[in-house]
Amino acid sequence: MSRTVIRGGLVITASDEIHADVLIEDGRIAALAASGTPAAEAWTAERVVDATGKYVIPGGVDAHTHMELPFGGTFASDTFETGTRAAAWGGTTTIVDFAVQSVGHTLREGLDAWHAKAEGNCAIDYGFHMIVSDVDDETLKEMDLLVEEGVTSFKQFMAYPGVFYSDDGQILRAMQRSAENGGLIMMHAENGIAIDVLVEQALARGETDPRYHGEVRKALLEAEATHRAIRLAQVAGAPLYVVHVSAREAVAELIRARDDGLNVFGETCPQYLFLSTDNLAEPDFEGAKYVCSTPLRPREHQAALWKGLRTNDLQVVSTDHCPFCFTGQKELGRGDFSKIPNGLPGVENRMDLLHQAVVDGHISRRRWIEIACATPARMFGLYPKKGTIAPGADADIVIYDPHAEQVISAETHHMNVDYSAYEGRRVTGRVETVLSRGEPVITEREYTGHAGHGVYTPRSTCQYLN
Amino acid sequence: MSRTVIRGGLVITASDEIHADVLIEDGRIAALAASGTPAAEAWTAERVVDATGKYVIPGGVDAHTHMELPFGGTFASDTFETGTRAAAWGGTTTIVDFAVQSVGHTLREGLDAWHAKAEGNCAIDYGFHMIVSDVDDETLKEMDLLVEEGVTSFKQFMAYPGVFYSDDGQILRAMQRSAENGGLIMMHAENGIAIDVLVEQALARGETDPRYHGEVRKALLEAEATHRAIRLAQVAGAPLYVVHVSAREAVAELIRARDDGLNVFGETCPQYLFLSTDNLAEPDFEGAKYVCSTPLRPREHQAALWKGLRTNDLQVVSTDHCPFCFTGQKELGRGDFSKIPNGLPGVENRMDLLHQAVVDGHISRRRWIEIACATPARMFGLYPKKGTIAPGADADIVIYDPHAEQVISAETHHMNVDYSAYEGRRVTGRVETVLSRGEPVITEREYTGHAGHGVYTPRSTCQYLN
Amino acid sequence: MSRTVIRGGLVITASDEIHADVLIEDGRIAALAASGTPAAEAWTAERVVDATGKYVIPGGVDAHTHMELPFGGTFASDTFETGTRAAAWGGTTTIVDFAVQSVGHTLREGLDAWHAKAEGNCAIDYGFHMIVSDVDDETLKEMDLLVEEGVTSFKQFMAYPGVFYSDDGQILRAMQRSAENGGLIMMHAENGIAIDVLVEQALARGETDPRYHGEVRKALLEAEATHRAIRLAQVAGAPLYVVHVSAREAVAELIRARDDGLNVFGETCPQYLFLSTDNLAEPDFEGAKYVCSTPLRPREHQAALWKGLRTNDLQVVSTDHCPFCFTGQKELGRGDFSKIPNGLPGVENRMDLLHQAVVDGHISRRRWIEIACATPARMFGLYPKKGTIAPGADADIVIYDPHAEQVISAETHHMNVDYSAYEGRRVTGRVETVLSRGEPVITEREYTGHAGHGVYTPRSTCQYLN
Amino acid sequence: MSRTVIRGGLVITASDEIHADVLIEDGRIAALAASGTPAAEAWTAERVVDATGKYVIPGGVDAHTHMELPFGGTFASDTFETGTRAAAWGGTTTIVDFAVQSVGHTLREGLDAWHAKAEGNCAIDYGFHMIVSDVDDETLKEMDLLVEEGVTSFKQFMAYPGVFYSDDGQILRAMQRSAENGGLIMMHAENGIAIDVLVEQALARGETDPRYHGEVRKALLEAEATHRAIRLAQVAGAPLYVVHVSAREAVAELIRARDDGLNVFGETCPQYLFLSTDNLAEPDFEGAKYVCSTPLRPREHQAALWKGLRTNDLQVVSTDHCPFCFTGQKELGRGDFSKIPNGLPGVENRMDLLHQAVVDGHISRRRWIEIACATPARMFGLYPKKGTIAPGADADIVIYDPHAEQVISAETHHMNVDYSAYEGRRVTGRVETVLSRGEPVITEREYTGHAGHGVYTPRSTCQYLN
Repeated sequence: MSRTVIRGGLVITASDEIHADVLIEDGRIAALAASGTPAAEAWTAERVVDATGKYVIPGGVDAHTHMELPFGGTFASDTFETGTRAAAWGGTTTIVDFAVQSVGHTLREGLDAWHAKAEGNCAIDYGFHMIVSDVDDETLKEMDLLVEEGVTSFKQFMAYPGVFYSDDGQILRAMQRSAENGGLIMMHAENGIAIDVLVEQALARGETDPRYHGEVRKALLEAEATHRAIRLAQVAGAPLYVVHVSAREAVAELIRARDDGLNVFGETCPQYLFLSTDNLAEPDFEGAKYVCSTPLRPREHQAALWKGLRTNDLQVVSTDHCPFCFTGQKELGRGDFSKIPNGLPGVENRMDLLHQAVVDGHISRRRWIEIACATPARMFGLYPKKGTIAPGADADIVIYDPHAEQVISAETHHMNVDYSAYEGRRVTGRVETVLSRGEPVITEREYTGHAGHGVYTPRSTCQYLN
Repeated sequence: MSRTVIRGGLVITASDEIHADVLIEDGRIAALAASGTPAAEAWTAERVVDATGKYVIPGGVDAHTHMELPFGGTFASDTFETGTRAAAWGGTTTIVDFAVQSVGHTLREGLDAWHAKAEGNCAIDYGFHMIVSDVDDETLKEMDLLVEEGVTSFKQFMAYPGVFYSDDGQILRAMQRSAENGGLIMMHAENGIAIDVLVEQALARGETDPRYHGEVRKALLEAEATHRAIRLAQVAGAPLYVVHVSAREAVAELIRARDDGLNVFGETCPQYLFLSTDNLAEPDFEGAKYVCSTPLRPREHQAALWKGLRTNDLQVVSTDHCPFCFTGQKELGRGDFSKIPNGLPGVENRMDLLHQAVVDGHISRRRWIEIACATPARMFGLYPKKGTIAPGADADIVIYDPHAEQVISAETHHMNVDYSAYEGRRVTGRVETVLSRGEPVITEREYTGHAGHGVYTPRSTCQYLN
Repeated sequence: MSRTVIRGGLVITASDEIHADVLIEDGRIAALAASGTPAAEAWTAERVVDATGKYVIPGGVDAHTHMELPFGGTFASDTFETGTRAAAWGGTTTIVDFAVQSVGHTLREGLDAWHAKAEGNCAIDYGFHMIVSDVDDETLKEMDLLVEEGVTSFKQFMAYPGVFYSDDGQILRAMQRSAENGGLIMMHAENGIAIDVLVEQALARGETDPRYHGEVRKALLEAEATHRAIRLAQVAGAPLYVVHVSAREAVAELIRARDDGLNVFGETCPQYLFLSTDNLAEPDFEGAKYVCSTPLRPREHQAALWKGLRTNDLQVVSTDHCPFCFTGQKELGRGDFSKIPNGLPGVENRMDLLHQAVVDGHISRRRWIEIACATPARMFGLYPKKGTIAPGADADIVIYDPHAEQVISAETHHMNVDYSAYEGRRVTGRVETVLSRGEPVITEREYTGHAGHGVYTPRSTCQYLN
Repeated sequence: MSRTVIRGGLVITASDEIHADVLIEDGRIAALAASGTPAAEAWTAERVVDATGKYVIPGGVDAHTHMELPFGGTFASDTFETGTRAAAWGGTTTIVDFAVQSVGHTLREGLDAWHAKAEGNCAIDYGFHMIVSDVDDETLKEMDLLVEEGVTSFKQFMAYPGVFYSDDGQILRAMQRSAENGGLIMMHAENGIAIDVLVEQALARGETDPRYHGEVRKALLEAEATHRAIRLAQVAGAPLYVVHVSAREAVAELIRARDDGLNVFGETCPQYLFLSTDNLAEPDFEGAKYVCSTPLRPREHQAALWKGLRTNDLQVVSTDHCPFCFTGQKELGRGDFSKIPNGLPGVENRMDLLHQAVVDGHISRRRWIEIACATPARMFGLYPKKGTIAPGADADIVIYDPHAEQVISAETHHMNVDYSAYEGRRVTGRVETVLSRGEPVITEREYTGHAGHGVYTPRSTCQYLN
């Protein structure tokens, strides 16, 4: 039996802040004891980590990543190897990535393909959601099977007609099925049919710059789709998780639904909290770096997102990490914004940016852990293995220095992408050491992990329902 | 010059109730004078109508009828001849019917066909809306032309996939066009894609009775589509008129939009105000008589509709008159509710039923005239020719006896359909005499009109915008 | 019998815009006839007014004036003579002023005193509301009597503790009584108890400038009182009319109540539509000119007021005319904003400023007449004698030149006050001729009226209820 | 050093459910270890509590009790001795009672008096809120001092004019002060001024039965006061805690405020969740047993309260324990409901009734602990000493048998009152053993505590703010 003790830190979970020592036995948290008590002093261990003056927090759970995603004729530039390594550098110890069903293929085929990409390559643990592109009777039956084997959430798209798009009937049928089998529908809520009209009209007017990406994907059309998804979920009697909420009008729809007591949840991402259409309008095609969907919004939407995070009308901050290099990838859309691959890098930056939000007073420390660790774990059936520091949980633990200063930059980050969306941003707080199931992956700012340490983690159904 | 004077009645318009004599010269209202004044006494005329103790009201404007509509393999049972005659009997002097574009055909073809059906056959004046089933560049150009020649409103369907259905892109494009050319989009707001899934599932469960028609066409899916139409109109910068609103949740969406100051309007129909799912559940397939879409709702929705009419969150009561005989037509759906032709007769009953609402205290007398005459006239560009009693207006006038009692019945009605949706209902108030452009169409409960008196009436654009 | 004909103008009422000639017999409107028809041509009259190219509109009804009001140790500077003359110059032909019950005195004493001030002095017709300062059993009985004799509305104050203030129990009792006797409670909705704390604190901090008047009378405290008045009215089952609404948060409360179908009404005033806290902050104590309660609000509140007027969540624009000269009166508050007499002049400017709103696109022409003439007449039981141009109505008519330009200035206005709140403002539109019961009061920009022409006008109960 | 180990139970906190052993050292929780791990097995202790098959939960925190309260000429029938003993029987280990400032006296005098009542008499720990009846400059200064010494919350009454009532100015001033000193204003939100009018009118009509207590204290007047308190708190920039919320309309006001991100909180009580006006209408004056203020509401309000608890629009369930014997106390109001002492017994029943709500599916197990233990502790500055099971916390722990069945009855309860509001109600779940700071107060359904064990617990300021 291996034993590790973390001494003297401030253990922060979604619910508590306590001065406690943490005892790890064989990769799991065995016990917590108040620092300095006889109970704590009695512990011995091969490895002792001194966390004095530091935070001891659960490893981050990033419930929305797209490693190696094929999109627009290219692939997201992070592999599972590079992406999970970068995640670990950023204090994230679990990702839930998206396996993709291609139209005309089964869920199983998609899932198998994604397992093949990930297996043996990951630095940290991982699970899979399933993107459902083609709902038919066969797909519905497969959904049941996947839930049983730990793929308990299914993403549908109201955008991207002809690619991932599901019509309202397909959505309703998938929601009905998830109401029965316990799955959770995750929705990309934008009215893609209407947006495509606006895209075509904009290009016809010669509006090809990246900033038009933000103009055509209107906030009202995100709000519309959000409302529609909520109503369909109501008809189906199913819960709903809306991904990457960016528009205040969409937040308003979530508020309405939650005031009615519905099991409707919302995720936002750091890019919507820290970036804006100002970035999309950067000259010399630099705006392409910030092209993602839903798009960045005018700066004044950020207040609604922060408020939503405080009032729990938004529950989760994920990254939607989907990096494309500026050179060679984003450039595919020069002269036609609609050809810019959609996505931003961020898996490495999430925990730090949200700690900065603590420093800036947007959220409390416990709320930081709740939206970045505990709630995504509960939402997607990983609790209490992941997302908290409690006896019995996996020893996925980050020693975080709340006083260190750093500057985010592509020169120093570990993601496989040639730019940073937050280039030059100074933040307070830094990951020092990261344990994954008790094993040090990052040790005092050195990478001590290895590809293949991370294992596939089947998930139970949503643990966050009313 | 022909002169008629109507003496001694209470002239009721949307705004006033005055004791006045009305002078008609050559089919138009020339003057109003306070009864008993020298000005009034000075008038002489060939024809003098004594309205003592009666109401003198504008002829009704029914902005939603479907004479001879092809639907589900059959045709609505009223021709323009029988339907407009029945309308006159019921105190309605103008209808706006729907010409239909078939998929693959032009608007012009549809409009020409409907002109051919109506011309020379109508007892009262009529205009046309245009049902747009197939939005493309050609259609959009035709819309401009139609607006110029007096077809200023266009109906689209979010229901009936494969028949009248438009997708959100087609709706957005039509709305954008109407924002430019002054047209008004009228929306059948039900999520037909989702409903079709529910229909299929119900039939698969053996739920074939007419009452399931009401269950699958869910109130939430009407509300959803209503909201979606509103958002698309917002994006397009266009006004919106939602037809046959029946669900309180849909009314709530209209209220939200109108509180925001949007030019969003709602129509309801007598069937939603006076009938309910109780009727759909009548045994022996009798429920088929009440099958229409949007469907009848549970009785408790009625209060929201009446409130909406009082607060002006609903502006118009039309009939959606679309009769099918029980024998031979409604019966097409025995064993499969989805095959029942959708529609109810009502063009003859609207003014009386709404007067009963006055008697019952739901609305005031002036509001009766507003929702049944003045606002539909304004909404669809017929004002001030139609919908009011004012110098310069067409002399479309009804002498209404507010004290007469009658019992509605198929045995006595004049619509060409073998049942009444209001069979046996006792109402207070009755049409006595009806003038159309000064000509008596109904004279003391005798039909004195003739097919061909009614003429096509081109319309200006909406006169009801903020 | 005297006869006047007004020829060739565009007659605008709340509901219609028609080219019609107006025939006046013995001070009342006898008839309207479409211009150019034989019916119109047949008329002869002693006096013919040529209104070609002009508007023919109902005389304005200003439902909120305070002539000669005692306030803060001084008196409003317009007498009934000067004030009603100025009103006529501005196109207003009826005012409803406020008689005041002093604490410890009866309603009758107050009403008699105000009759004495007005009788024989007015250029135009007038009525009275009653300010109720002291609700007790005796007062409640008097309310019944006053309703019977035509004083059908009663104002209470949630502000001004120790002067006009009523507590919630007194308000509830008066509302209960009005629910029985048909009276209408008019509410000054500001939480005066809380405001007085803020006033005292501001003065203690040395904040004595007029601009602090606007800061301490917080929008939230207007909204609070508005909501409270609505709830009390709900408990009493009574309608409610909220005077001088200025804060968007208060408008929001009205919207909520009206969405619920309550008989709750709101009045705003030109000062809230055209002026702002910028005026209150004018240097050299000039801000005192704009001190009134509710106070002027930051400019961004104006949009909510205009929207409320368009959506009919606000129904009436009155002036709250209560002028105090800058010299000698407003100056009482130098060094202590709480001693500045509250009130602005405006009875002469209302019709013109609202016509400017038509020119600016805020409201339509008919809405102009509705909020300034028709609705106040209906609301306070003067319809159809006042507020419209219809057979049987009093011949209170304004010939309005919509193209004339003028500059508002104290140098040219006719109110008895040494400044104008709108000094230097250029507006399009001008009153040309004013008839009061058929008599010319203003004749082509000459005053041809006389004190004593105007008579007291008893009123029926509210004609605007659902 | 004394050591206790609780073995084998399911430890439930607001955030976690874990199978863990709990080690207590010297009255505090020293450590938690996953059951069966070497870490857990290594522990030895003098006292071992076997919790196999049981829940191990934090002791309840009842933030609203009134032991020995003088009211209506009598005193609440539980002393601190009997009341805290009953609390312990019911699984509650901390109460926060209300010291009372009498009008004309200082806060200090009131606090001293309450300390004298409680000291040496309590079975469990206790703290004090302060009822502020008389806000003046002196009181405001005292508030600062009290916050410093651990009385960090202050209750004001919008009801009970002449007794506890504060006017809006006094409320605003207290709120402003609490915004500065960190205190939390607790509000009894009913419009007592208006209610007193309705009481007087009801009695004058001969409506003296207890059920009229419920009729005159209208839901709309609770909602009104709730809204008013929220607005005043907004003006003051202070947080607000509304006590004993019972009306769905009041919940709606809380929802509005919380959607806006305000620090507004709501408490409800078991009586509003489980009882209704049906109880108030019990014959033979039995309704008097259920007289409290805010009053019980019609049954249909309960759904809004349960929903509020689920959506966290209500945060806390306290008892408002204020017992009066039916014989001799409640009977004071025979013939005049307004003389019935206001209050219900309940301190012993809260944890069980809320567990029943878990069984019934209204709330989850963790939510049970959150609303009954963790949030009241956070809200009133007792965290993490109270309200959770975590290293460092006081060892206030309940061993709860979730399968035991019991019937609530005055015959078996331990409160000093001659009736139970829940007489005959069968509930699932029962307290087995209760530790207070490690000492067994209840040991396997035997009382093993003693008066004087419980100590006064000063509190920090609110730990629940955004």
